[in-house]
Amino acid sequence: MAIMYKENPLKSVSWEDFQKLDLSAKGAYFVREQKPYHALIAQQFTRPMLDRLCELATRIRRIAKTRGGTLFLQDLLSEKRAMLYFAQPSTRTFLSFYAACQIVGLLPAEVRDTSTSSELKGESPEDSVRTFSSYFDLIIMRHPVGGFAERIAWLLSNTDRPVPVINAGSGKDQHPTQALLDVYTLQRSFERRGGIEGKKIAFVGDLARGRTVRSLAWLLTLYPGVKQYFVAPDSLQIGPDILQFLDHAGMPYEISQDFERVIPEVDAIYMTRIQDEWDTAHESQVLDTSHFHFTKAHLTKLKSDAVIMHPLPRRKEIEAAVDSDPRAVYWRQVRNGMWIRAALILTVFQRDPEVDRYYQDLTS
Amino acid sequence: MAIMYKENPLKSVSWEDFQKLDLSAKGAYFVREQKPYHALIAQQFTRPMLDRLCELATRIRRIAKTRGGTLFLQDLLSEKRAMLYFAQPSTRTFLSFYAACQIVGLLPAEVRDTSTSSELKGESPEDSVRTFSSYFDLIIMRHPVGGFAERIAWLLSNTDRPVPVINAGSGKDQHPTQALLDVYTLQRSFERRGGIEGKKIAFVGDLARGRTVRSLAWLLTLYPGVKQYFVAPDSLQIGPDILQFLDHAGMPYEISQDFERVIPEVDAIYMTRIQDEWDTAHESQVLDTSHFHFTKAHLTKLKSDAVIMHPLPRRKEIEAAVDSDPRAVYWRQVRNGMWIRAALILTVFQRDPEVDRYYQDLTS
Amino acid sequence: MAIMYKENPLKSVSWEDFQKLDLSAKGAYFVREQKPYHALIAQQFTRPMLDRLCELATRIRRIAKTRGGTLFLQDLLSEKRAMLYFAQPSTRTFLSFYAACQIVGLLPAEVRDTSTSSELKGESPEDSVRTFSSYFDLIIMRHPVGGFAERIAWLLSNTDRPVPVINAGSGKDQHPTQALLDVYTLQRSFERRGGIEGKKIAFVGDLARGRTVRSLAWLLTLYPGVKQYFVAPDSLQIGPDILQFLDHAGMPYEISQDFERVIPEVDAIYMTRIQDEWDTAHESQVLDTSHFHFTKAHLTKLKSDAVIMHPLPRRKEIEAAVDSDPRAVYWRQVRNGMWIRAALILTVFQRDPEVDRYYQDLTS
Repeated sequence: MAIMYKENPLKSVSWEDFQKLDLSAKGAYFVREQKPYHALIAQQFTRPMLDRLCELATRIRRIAKTRGGTLFLQDLLSEKRAMLYFAQPSTRTFLSFYAACQIVGLLPAEVRDTSTSSELKGESPEDSVRTFSSYFDLIIMRHPVGGFAERIAWLLSNTDRPVPVINAGSGKDQHPTQALLDVYTLQRSFERRGGIEGKKIAFVGDLARGRTVRSLAWLLTLYPGVKQYFVAPDSLQIGPDILQFLDHAGMPYEISQDFERVIPEVDAIYMTRIQDEWDTAHESQVLDTSHFHFTKAHLTKLKSDAVIMHPLPRRKEIEAAVDSDPRAVYWRQVRNGMWIRAALILTVFQRDPEVDRYYQDLTS
Repeated sequence: MAIMYKENPLKSVSWEDFQKLDLSAKGAYFVREQKPYHALIAQQFTRPMLDRLCELATRIRRIAKTRGGTLFLQDLLSEKRAMLYFAQPSTRTFLSFYAACQIVGLLPAEVRDTSTSSELKGESPEDSVRTFSSYFDLIIMRHPVGGFAERIAWLLSNTDRPVPVINAGSGKDQHPTQALLDVYTLQRSFERRGGIEGKKIAFVGDLARGRTVRSLAWLLTLYPGVKQYFVAPDSLQIGPDILQFLDHAGMPYEISQDFERVIPEVDAIYMTRIQDEWDTAHESQVLDTSHFHFTKAHLTKLKSDAVIMHPLPRRKEIEAAVDSDPRAVYWRQVRNGMWIRAALILTVFQRDPEVDRYYQDLTS
Repeated sequence: MAIMYKENPLKSVSWEDFQKLDLSAKGAYFVREQKPYHALIAQQFTRPMLDRLCELATRIRRIAKTRGGTLFLQDLLSEKRAMLYFAQPSTRTFLSFYAACQIVGLLPAEVRDTSTSSELKGESPEDSVRTFSSYFDLIIMRHPVGGFAERIAWLLSNTDRPVPVINAGSGKDQHPTQALLDVYTLQRSFERRGGIEGKKIAFVGDLARGRTVRSLAWLLTLYPGVKQYFVAPDSLQIGPDILQFLDHAGMPYEISQDFERVIPEVDAIYMTRIQDEWDTAHESQVLDTSHFHFTKAHLTKLKSDAVIMHPLPRRKEIEAAVDSDPRAVYWRQVRNGMWIRAALILTVFQRDPEVDRYYQDLTS
């Protein structure tokens, strides 16, 4: 997938042809010199890219432990400016990206209004984003319309002033940096246990809706031997397209409704919220999902070196008393998101080798 | 009150026990090494702390008079990032803190939406703030729920990543940095007249509601000989709890409805707005408060070295024609707020000694 | 118009007397030492000022091409802070100014709420802006009330702490930095063709409403020999006051409804949107304005070195297929706005000579 491009690949394809491609084929258009240039879909990341981003995130967080290191990082992209265009409200993802920009020195500006004056004046969404992008060197965007970030990346690639685009969540389908932070959290959790390969990972809750689980399930196929468990009520089970994909990739998995049985077997439990905002007729409300909650009592059943994850926000699917257990890593997951996003931004601008040099000086 | 703590005191107390404490006892939990670590309630400040913050604010404003000094200050906390979380709208307090962060180099990020996406998704307010705080080194927060900032300070103290919390106004009760800026304005105003001690200070207007007067009346008990006048219609007079507190502290005071008589007697007049947003049945509207307005005609009655203060925003309680009189210090009060907040933030991070060193070089 | 002032001229005039002045006479009050101090109306700019701002904008954009140059620019006003007070929504102008501040190192803070808490509390708009301005060194403001920015500039001039005010759009009348960016775009477009003098420039669309065309038509009288064409349906034609002004200035112009005939004649076509937000009875909707659209077919009629401009946002008045023609400069216009605003801000603070010195080193 990661072909080396001398030129901007998105310039050489029509929008119509591009749309016909499948996700993996699309991904190749977002990559330059084997690094993400745009970051739009989970499927664009190869295993070497994931390993590299995780390594870089860890180096950045270590460098940031001293004042000198923090100031070094802030200098890296201090000549650049980023626009955070959030047409859908999302305080947590917004702040995570905002902080990531600050860490690497990018000056941020923000558009968080869902209804801008221009839209009122009848401007096309493409014109709006193109205008906003005129002032900045990087666009980080969240949009309710699936594929809109790709459309913008394609559009800007065909102007005099292309800039990279990072997808901070689009429609129901893609939230690639959430997938990156999940991979990073797994990688950190299993760092001294041989990495993610061969681990057993359970997804619990609402697996039918929500892009998080779908993207992560996809990325885990890059790690040989991983066995995935999908634990959910029937009506909220993972989609058949994901299962077909796992079959095709030859990855083992299990479908289950028996959370109690799965808990002691696995190395990681990825809890999710019932996404009732997608309900069409309040169907979630009649569902008893209490059997898919992680309670304090479950801690005794869980392996001593397993981890509990959650993309947050949570409701009742994890009891607050679980928070203080060292295996509950969902608060670390939040912070991991900031570091992996900082790593991604530096990589987009190809400034990652400077981090390596600083890190080598630090550790030698 | 200011006991020296080697450890985080909020970690050693349960939330239930903490809540039972009175304000002075609570205050001790927010202090470390005799400096504010959290800034949550007016009652946590001792007289030495107030004197120190005023001294520091004045040093900062003098250093900021040159470009070199401004850049020195901006470097002090340039490795830190602050979140301004304003769940209630407040443009003036927000901007004052924002500017204070910029002065000392803290990179700010903001959440000013009252309804965030996470709350819509059923997340607890504690989880929301904990998530947001994951990305930042300081939380400056305004919240409609009284005591919520304390709750967050306690909660974060019991995590892997405690960060200081500054209360920018919570519920009806506390707005400690407003009290600090009022003290600072009085201290500046009486700098060449022996300080605040022994001065006569009148509070006028709506003394029953609004946290400003209550906090300042409390802090003034730290200045021997201060006599306080409470000038208001009966239904808006100061609460009996404050009077009991003054009795207990042995501080003189007077209750009055006769503003005309009080004006020539006092060294400072602290005007306030009728806070009819707290009316339950439009009771303020039937009240004739015109006798509690400060007019241009009053200027001739006022001592030549007295000052007129107001926390702003004002309506009609001070005539606009008064603004140009040199004794009207309410616009300076606004700017004092920015400087004292900058002093507080530096103190929270224990970076105040660097200001002293720079200042000594400047003045030697 | 550009008289040299040792003192703040707005301090020596009453608000009542000031309001009686005509626009040119007002303009003189906003200028100090022949440079804009406030930037409030298009009529305050003389030809030398326009030439200087264009020169400066081009120097800044060239300096910004390297990392070193960008960092040099960011250092210029790094000790200053700006408030962007947008009481009317305007994402594009807001972002353009925000980016301009970032380019010259000014730390920005923003107020984009149309309803602030203070207004709810009964504060006067003057008090609100005076408070906000207390924390900052420059006010960039957009306001729905015509003349309000002037009022604030006058008011602040008569306080202890006057700060410059830049008008980012007020009421129906003034948006002076839009006029500056239009002039800059024309100057850049005709740089190798002897400049703006003697060129033929057509304004097309809704010329009756909207401040853009009116301001630019005015400024073009500073360029000898320019002939202006006003191409619009009768009900949307340019106001008689502008035509009288052109007559008085001895500038040639033509009134037309025949867009097709005008296209091949002119050097620049300035397209505008039908501003139906000012309709009182949906009168625009019954109007057939399709004859005033610029289509791809028109490109063959247009001179090979002419340019097509638009202040944006656009609807259907320019076909999207026109965007890729090199004569379509409206996307460059967007970016020109950022550069000319950066030039203006530096000039307000009289830091423009430092740009010249750096530029001379660069090019020598």
